[in-house]
Amino acid sequence: MIQVSQALSIISENSCKMPIKKIKVHKSLGFILAETIYSPIDMPPFRQSSMDGYAFSFSELNQFDIVGVSQAGNFSNEQIKKNQAIRIFTGAYVPDCLDTVVMQEHTQRNEQTITIIKKPNALTNVRSKGEQIKKEELVLEKDTLITPAAIGFLACLGITEINVYKKPKVAIVVTGNELVKAGKKLGKGKIFESNSVMLKVALQGVGINKIKTFSVKDNLKNTKKTLQNCLSKFDVVLVSGGISVGDYDFVKEALLYNGVEELFYTINQKPGKPLFFGKKDKTIVFALPGNPASALSCFYIYVHLALKKTMGFDSVHLNKIKRKIKTPFQNTTGKSLFLKGFYNDESVTVLESQSSAMLNTFATANGLIYMPYNTELVAENEEVTVIPIN
Amino acid sequence: MIQVSQALSIISENSCKMPIKKIKVHKSLGFILAETIYSPIDMPPFRQSSMDGYAFSFSELNQFDIVGVSQAGNFSNEQIKKNQAIRIFTGAYVPDCLDTVVMQEHTQRNEQTITIIKKPNALTNVRSKGEQIKKEELVLEKDTLITPAAIGFLACLGITEINVYKKPKVAIVVTGNELVKAGKKLGKGKIFESNSVMLKVALQGVGINKIKTFSVKDNLKNTKKTLQNCLSKFDVVLVSGGISVGDYDFVKEALLYNGVEELFYTINQKPGKPLFFGKKDKTIVFALPGNPASALSCFYIYVHLALKKTMGFDSVHLNKIKRKIKTPFQNTTGKSLFLKGFYNDESVTVLESQSSAMLNTFATANGLIYMPYNTELVAENEEVTVIPIN
Repeated sequence: MIQVSQALSIISENSCKMPIKKIKVHKSLGFILAETIYSPIDMPPFRQSSMDGYAFSFSELNQFDIVGVSQAGNFSNEQIKKNQAIRIFTGAYVPDCLDTVVMQEHTQRNEQTITIIKKPNALTNVRSKGEQIKKEELVLEKDTLITPAAIGFLACLGITEINVYKKPKVAIVVTGNELVKAGKKLGKGKIFESNSVMLKVALQGVGINKIKTFSVKDNLKNTKKTLQNCLSKFDVVLVSGGISVGDYDFVKEALLYNGVEELFYTINQKPGKPLFFGKKDKTIVFALPGNPASALSCFYIYVHLALKKTMGFDSVHLNKIKRKIKTPFQNTTGKSLFLKGFYNDESVTVLESQSSAMLNTFATANGLIYMPYNTELVAENEEVTVIPIN
Repeated sequence: MIQVSQALSIISENSCKMPIKKIKVHKSLGFILAETIYSPIDMPPFRQSSMDGYAFSFSELNQFDIVGVSQAGNFSNEQIKKNQAIRIFTGAYVPDCLDTVVMQEHTQRNEQTITIIKKPNALTNVRSKGEQIKKEELVLEKDTLITPAAIGFLACLGITEINVYKKPKVAIVVTGNELVKAGKKLGKGKIFESNSVMLKVALQGVGINKIKTFSVKDNLKNTKKTLQNCLSKFDVVLVSGGISVGDYDFVKEALLYNGVEELFYTINQKPGKPLFFGKKDKTIVFALPGNPASALSCFYIYVHLALKKTMGFDSVHLNKIKRKIKTPFQNTTGKSLFLKGFYNDESVTVLESQSSAMLNTFATANGLIYMPYNTELVAENEEVTVIPIN
């Protein structure tokens, strides 16, 4: 049995980045960039007006004849005399012979002439070519998280494809003779299967969509066969149930039989003590406790970390926050606890009813409060670590 | 021109909840529940062992003959005598005549008999029927955000469908003769269109997937026609560009022509001053500034709020955090500022280069720092409001 911090280190070390793939920019939200990107163009690609107004060549003159119009998207580069100006709009091309734009609000127009009332400095309101970024300059560094802003930036440079780290394909393996699919009749001694549905949406919440669910009865042969198949075809295997020490818990045996290396089994924590983590080749395996609330706690604390690591996230992206606890708390168990809590911007409250079998409290919690095994008493307003869970 | 806080209030008041629809539980992640849910069953549906061990009828006896097995998913309710026990596993049915389970670690087994070494109290390790939740008891209140835990909870009660507030269908209307689709040749005076791609992924980031993009040239007739179509078919219309006061900015005129009520136009802020917000029937309309960084700022500050409101979120779900600012900041503009920043768990740093035309900084920011128009100086370590942006 190991401590929480050891478990997290082992997971972190053993969850390797996925291979790289090329992806369309408009589909890259939430991926991690696997290359450094340099600009293929100057942006803006031409000298551009940053205002609606009049473009002219700066001199002592304050009165101009209007001889043309430059609207965004049009292009004209005619010669314009010193005493001439053109009507110009935001984003429009500034002809080479002009250097300054006066805002329309600072002019007085009289048919085809304008008088400047408030004169700008020379070169004002003209964005130079490449002012935002020059060709070959750095756009985004390798390992950047792709956000809407990053996608907008890439798109405005005309970049349509980038290399990112793949997201893992995940198998969910649900074990248990007692499980009945929701919508079916609930026979005596049976319960509705909920872990596969819950884990699937939790995975979707992390941005993972290649997920397949398998059900096996509590039977060693079937468990071995299903796991063998999953280990060869998926990057991450999540097994739900069948991992405690009861006679009918075949999962650990079936994993070892299939050549999975045990990296840890059981953590000094509550809930979620019987958690198995292992690896075969590059596939990582979690065998989660069967009861829903324990399984979900382990998902947020451990599986989440592993998934993010495989997707190329580094620690800076991992979600841990500090909050002042509203309710003093005593931990006399000698185990690390993860308590369902509700946090706001300042503090966190321990919710009532922490039983590991129950999702009731979990469904209204927004964080798990971490109480290390060696912390006996946490006083009111002391800072604690919270793992956000939605 | 109005202030930021007024704009937020107007948006909040005018963004109405979408109609209700029935949805499969496994597809309901991120929706807001539009009904209160009561449990259709007792959970657990039967008296259940919470341990691997032996079930017996509590008495002065400490030695028992093992006469059967109850495994999770099986059901047997035979009569068992006082000096008899059965092998039982976690989650398994406890026959009516038995009341206590002893952990296997606290027994000594000798072929078909066991001796209890450490005797539990009566009724220990047996979960009573309905211990987690009883039939007809409250499962989830109306207006709860559907999280993985909520989905797990509903699924374990056999609930397969729930009523939620719909998510809005969103039209993105991009205006501008200067815009060229990425991947095409960039003619003189043209730039790559990026706002539609960026707004689309930003919407996806909020969980909205019914999005359609329209492009119109700077032409009043086409703009009117496209907007008319969008106003009749979508719940939210986002127009990008064409909203400043230049001669070629037709959007406002086209909106008013189509019967959109102007709720505000222009905010005393930077970036994003020329922001239009209006409404026709239940469709809300934002006309965003054309430049990408301003458009995205307005999205996170204003559109995000409106979308969440339509999806049934209330203020408790809205994302605003407080951080200590690392860099003192002076605001002499008289305008409210939204500065691109990078925050960690404790503090926030104002990033360099805040120009509204540039997405460079935005792409590496994770928050917008709000500097109200009437705050002239913010000292180092003073608390500021940050809007997280990814």
